Amino acid sequence: MGTVAISAGGAFTAYLQQQATAFLRGLSLRGESETEADALLRGSARRIAGVLHTYAPLADPGWAEPLRAELAWLSATLGREPQYATRLARLVDALRRLSAAGTPEAVLSAALPLPSDGPPAEVAAAGGGAAPLALGAARAAALLERQLTLARTRAHSATLQAMGSSRFHGLADSIAVLASEVPLTPGAAQPAHEVLPALAGQAYQRLCDAADALPLHRAALPYNAEAVQAALGAELTADLQDAPWHQVRILLRLARYAAEVPGAEPRADERLGDAATLLQRHREASESAAAVASAARTPRIAPATAYALGVLHADQRHEVEAARFAFSRLWQTQGQDANAAPAPGVRTE
Amino acid sequence: MGTVAISAGGAFTAYLQQQATAFLRGLSLRGESETEADALLRGSARRIAGVLHTYAPLADPGWAEPLRAELAWLSATLGREPQYATRLARLVDALRRLSAAGTPEAVLSAALPLPSDGPPAEVAAAGGGAAPLALGAARAAALLERQLTLARTRAHSATLQAMGSSRFHGLADSIAVLASEVPLTPGAAQPAHEVLPALAGQAYQRLCDAADALPLHRAALPYNAEAVQAALGAELTADLQDAPWHQVRILLRLARYAAEVPGAEPRADERLGDAATLLQRHREASESAAAVASAARTPRIAPATAYALGVLHADQRHEVEAARFAFSRLWQTQGQDANAAPAPGVRTE
Repeated sequence: MGTVAISAGGAFTAYLQQQATAFLRGLSLRGESETEADALLRGSARRIAGVLHTYAPLADPGWAEPLRAELAWLSATLGREPQYATRLARLVDALRRLSAAGTPEAVLSAALPLPSDGPPAEVAAAGGGAAPLALGAARAAALLERQLTLARTRAHSATLQAMGSSRFHGLADSIAVLASEVPLTPGAAQPAHEVLPALAGQAYQRLCDAADALPLHRAALPYNAEAVQAALGAELTADLQDAPWHQVRILLRLARYAAEVPGAEPRADERLGDAATLLQRHREASESAAAVASAARTPRIAPATAYALGVLHADQRHEVEAARFAFSRLWQTQGQDANAAPAPGVRTE
Repeated sequence: MGTVAISAGGAFTAYLQQQATAFLRGLSLRGESETEADALLRGSARRIAGVLHTYAPLADPGWAEPLRAELAWLSATLGREPQYATRLARLVDALRRLSAAGTPEAVLSAALPLPSDGPPAEVAAAGGGAAPLALGAARAAALLERQLTLARTRAHSATLQAMGSSRFHGLADSIAVLASEVPLTPGAAQPAHEVLPALAGQAYQRLCDAADALPLHRAALPYNAEAVQAALGAELTADLQDAPWHQVRILLRLARYAAEVPGAEPRADERLGDAATLLQRHREASESAAAVASAARTPRIAPATAYALGVLHADQRHEVEAARFAFSRLWQTQGQDANAAPAPGVRTE
């Protein structure tokens, strides 16, 4: 498809400029729809930062590295608000499922006798350890809604503040410059097919190495109870246990972005799409479980509320385990030899 | 093996007398080792009651039915104490696993600052919602230990009382009579091979029908979250969900006891041993979860204790789900056609 004639720097620049254009479109869209605009901004920021990492030998590091740091700051800032929204929806949905109630609204509205915008529902039940446990689910939902809505509102303010900051304007200027010119290294003059597949292959290899180092055999045994092991232990235990999985999720994203660059000749690995979904689910369950543990530390909550939060925490840790199980089965049963030759002639462009 | 010459009643009587002998041996053993003696008494009581049910057409119902009722009373009475002991061990072990602590003793002894025989650990923490959640595991263990040890002590007293009662002496007399003479029906005069395999086959068929009516397809999907669904709902929901599985466990026991009678020619179904283990695990997890929910209703427990109990409850419901998963896989993958002809020439004697 003519990749022979294109230099590595040329293909790389084309991809970066495409992403820079998306970024600037996101910026101009912000007046109309913040949510859509932020998703666009975040997606292009992550892609630019990702390929600057994978294809680092092609770009002037003095320019690329500070830019990557700024892009990481922006995408982290933009990511928080939707994460809190997703987390709340996930937890209220889980509480609904756990209490076998009809709808999320049913769980929330069952938080009688207080209206949802009244004082903390716990106050009414404080000291009422003998209160029906079923009420705990509704109170836990109300507590999580308050806490996560507050966090979401704060994240929204932080985003607005960031978007108005001189730091953001500096970043937007860099992206605007990027749309017209990318500072390349001399090595970028080599033909694309001599450089890009090797660098994309390294990103893929880093993913495979990290995924193969996960405890996949254990995770592939259903109901191994590994993920829930730390449910009542120190939080550090869960963090240490989850970290390698989060790392694989990041490496997977890098490998996928690297594969989007024209001429990268990515591996024909059909697992990647589903694997990304499963690791995202793993992350959401892991962070939701942590949010529940945090809510359980709220002073003066009723025992029934704490009990429901405990059930919910364990449930989310089992979701973590379920995601690991599914990932392990996916990665092992369709497992390719990571050292095999690249699949011939596979292009995503 | 000479079964042709034996009448159905003869084989049935031989088995009953063997069990009656075991019962009387258990009775005489009681002065030395209560635990061993009770296990022997209970095992033979369950077997006699079981075969009286399965082979009902062979025994005089006016004699058999009141005897079965008395045997059911005795085995239920004798079963309670070991059940509480097993339940406590299971729950303390689960708390140890969930808090990733070293030993069960570590969990219990971590219930600082109170000694294990001091006043309720909750008192110290009452109102201390911000207390570290990790302490909750130790307090939950201490609470469960108190409650289940009390229940066990009461069950022990109830057993002692039952063994000294005129009701028990009446039952023991019936068993002593049974050891020498079983009141049979006229039909029991038929050859064993014409009667016993059909009755044992009916017991097996009742088991298969009930097992096949379970939601095996859903249970065979790992992490289906079915068993935990009722964790925060009404207790009735869990009871309704678990009941068919408990029923299969009872039918499985009846089929196994029926197969022990000489000449019963039981099906060569290799699943039965493992299936019994899994359904026993299902029952223990189900009843342990209920005990945790009950403990969570203790007035004035600390939120951290309630939280740990919530985690533990969900964990035990996941154990319920894990047992169903394993049973479903076992029953389906090695599944035999329940309507197939009996395996030829298979005898356990």
